[in-house]
Amino acid sequence: MAILPFAIQIAGNMSQYWTETVHKLDPYIPGEQPQDQQYIKLNTNENPYPPSPQVIAAIDQFDMDRLKLYPDPESTVLRQELARHFDVGSDNIFMGNGSDEVLAHCFQAFFKHGKPLLFPDISYSFYPVYCGLYDISYQTIPLTSDFSININDYFIDNGGIIFPNPNAPTSRLLALDQIEVLCEKNASVVIVDEAYIDFGGESAIALTHRFDNLLVTQTFSKSRSLAGLRLGYAVGHADLIEGLNRIKNSFNSYPVDAIAQAAALASVKDQTYMSDCCDRIIKTRNDLTKALLKLGFEVLPSAANFIFVQHPQYSAESLYLSLKDRGVLVRYFNKPRIDNYLRITVGTDSEIATLITTLSHILD
Amino acid sequence: MAILPFAIQIAGNMSQYWTETVHKLDPYIPGEQPQDQQYIKLNTNENPYPPSPQVIAAIDQFDMDRLKLYPDPESTVLRQELARHFDVGSDNIFMGNGSDEVLAHCFQAFFKHGKPLLFPDISYSFYPVYCGLYDISYQTIPLTSDFSININDYFIDNGGIIFPNPNAPTSRLLALDQIEVLCEKNASVVIVDEAYIDFGGESAIALTHRFDNLLVTQTFSKSRSLAGLRLGYAVGHADLIEGLNRIKNSFNSYPVDAIAQAAALASVKDQTYMSDCCDRIIKTRNDLTKALLKLGFEVLPSAANFIFVQHPQYSAESLYLSLKDRGVLVRYFNKPRIDNYLRITVGTDSEIATLITTLSHILD
Repeated sequence: MAILPFAIQIAGNMSQYWTETVHKLDPYIPGEQPQDQQYIKLNTNENPYPPSPQVIAAIDQFDMDRLKLYPDPESTVLRQELARHFDVGSDNIFMGNGSDEVLAHCFQAFFKHGKPLLFPDISYSFYPVYCGLYDISYQTIPLTSDFSININDYFIDNGGIIFPNPNAPTSRLLALDQIEVLCEKNASVVIVDEAYIDFGGESAIALTHRFDNLLVTQTFSKSRSLAGLRLGYAVGHADLIEGLNRIKNSFNSYPVDAIAQAAALASVKDQTYMSDCCDRIIKTRNDLTKALLKLGFEVLPSAANFIFVQHPQYSAESLYLSLKDRGVLVRYFNKPRIDNYLRITVGTDSEIATLITTLSHILD
Repeated sequence: MAILPFAIQIAGNMSQYWTETVHKLDPYIPGEQPQDQQYIKLNTNENPYPPSPQVIAAIDQFDMDRLKLYPDPESTVLRQELARHFDVGSDNIFMGNGSDEVLAHCFQAFFKHGKPLLFPDISYSFYPVYCGLYDISYQTIPLTSDFSININDYFIDNGGIIFPNPNAPTSRLLALDQIEVLCEKNASVVIVDEAYIDFGGESAIALTHRFDNLLVTQTFSKSRSLAGLRLGYAVGHADLIEGLNRIKNSFNSYPVDAIAQAAALASVKDQTYMSDCCDRIIKTRNDLTKALLKLGFEVLPSAANFIFVQHPQYSAESLYLSLKDRGVLVRYFNKPRIDNYLRITVGTDSEIATLITTLSHILD
């Protein structure tokens, strides 16, 4: 009796009831969140500081009886505040349940064409997963040898371009004038995923006034310390936003809950707190960089709340495991070109001091 | 010069950057939420009572500093509590950002096959929208003349079956023994969408132990008064749940925020409050039904927190408009077979008294 490939798949924890899409998926794996002990968590790029006191006050003052009602499906007031902050119109802003959801909608709204989507070979590992989810063909463009994006490599026929800026996990920034040239010369939608932009980059949002093919995504999870509340958004030409709204209103009319809307509004109104947090993180990042250089690490120039490092004498995997043994979690990617690198989130000064001490012991 | 169809589309508020999916979409339109005046809102099936005091206490006690961290991507503790409540395993439960999101994932996970998905011709109007989003073929099965589901009509070759129970907007319940026969005889996945089950029906969740093709979805938005927090879930065989997890982890790893998880946990632990609310709503529904019968309305037997009614002498549309003029919002669907019906949410006794008085004036 011949063994059919499908039978083998069923045996491998699959189900006859799944669609072909599900069978073929290779889901994203977020950074580990072990429950067995207290770790110093420098592995998921969370902000080490709590949200703004204004955010906490807004939640405290929220009328909980209102939870019986559906939230504003359009997050109107929040979008107006963001629009004011970025000097765009509210119809240039799309809100979602975290920027991962926003990105998912973007892939479905703009990237499924006959031509391949382009993104860097080293980049946010969710991008190829979205491509699997929506059956989008893609082509990865290698970063240069110093892990930079060279925009000239993207001037080929394509169905869209996406990259994080600063890039993850490399932490390197692409200059705004390069993004400008890219948008000008490229015929398809360019998405700049600015999850980490507040930690040292200049946003491309101002360019959305000039380029109707540019969409910029940002998140409340990093610089605004609200990963727990799930808020992300996209900024761009009203036609692009309308495309996202059509997807959203065919998926879930009410993606952002009422408390999250109120909290995010308070966060946008308190820019000082956010920029103070970012300044502290940038200062710690500089101190961390210096300390690691002293220990013999090579550190890529970072514009993010994490750094990307390797050590010429020690394998990244062994360092990752040794750190984990000693209660410090960093991120290790067992992937081509970066399998000797560690991504380290910039924590508090005290967390970073512990990391450095621990690393010194390991290297001894 | 010939005018190309595409050029016409572009003129009609479309964009060259949209994918074909977006161009073809016909998004869902939720019940109106007018901002111009205070209405008695009986149009979106919200619960008239606030969430449990235990829920509000859980939010008050939530450590807001934790919002800087990502929430548990698997909603582990909440799923364990739901599992205990429903006497299933945690691996039989999938959590999402509202049951609309859960349903969207279900459509992508289980319903895209060569054969058409089946659902009633009068049903939740989001179902055909999901089909558009994921390019799923479907066939509607007419309800009987009294707006019931006859399961014999579903014994045809299909790629899946879905219906709300009680059905929306008709409010009618399908008996559990009928669902049992349906699951037994049907080869594909059967989804019973139990958004309104707590208002007078018996859940099919117990049947998921016996049928690996049965998935039951429920929500915190109706009986638990938490529409504002966006929480829904699916219960079924672990393989079906695994299919949903594969979709979720390819879309957004963290769909349910940390405060929503804490609030929902408190809600599940306080079953008494929920069933007391449901009892009050059922009592009001009975009073409302009697009062409307007196006014000459025909009222379908309801197992939901809404009723579906028509008046032999007055058009539903004119009644809807007259009520709106007088500050009472109900839902009117301008659709075949139901364009002379109104769907009225069961509010508080006082709201319902106002509705009845207002209707009496209109009918006079």
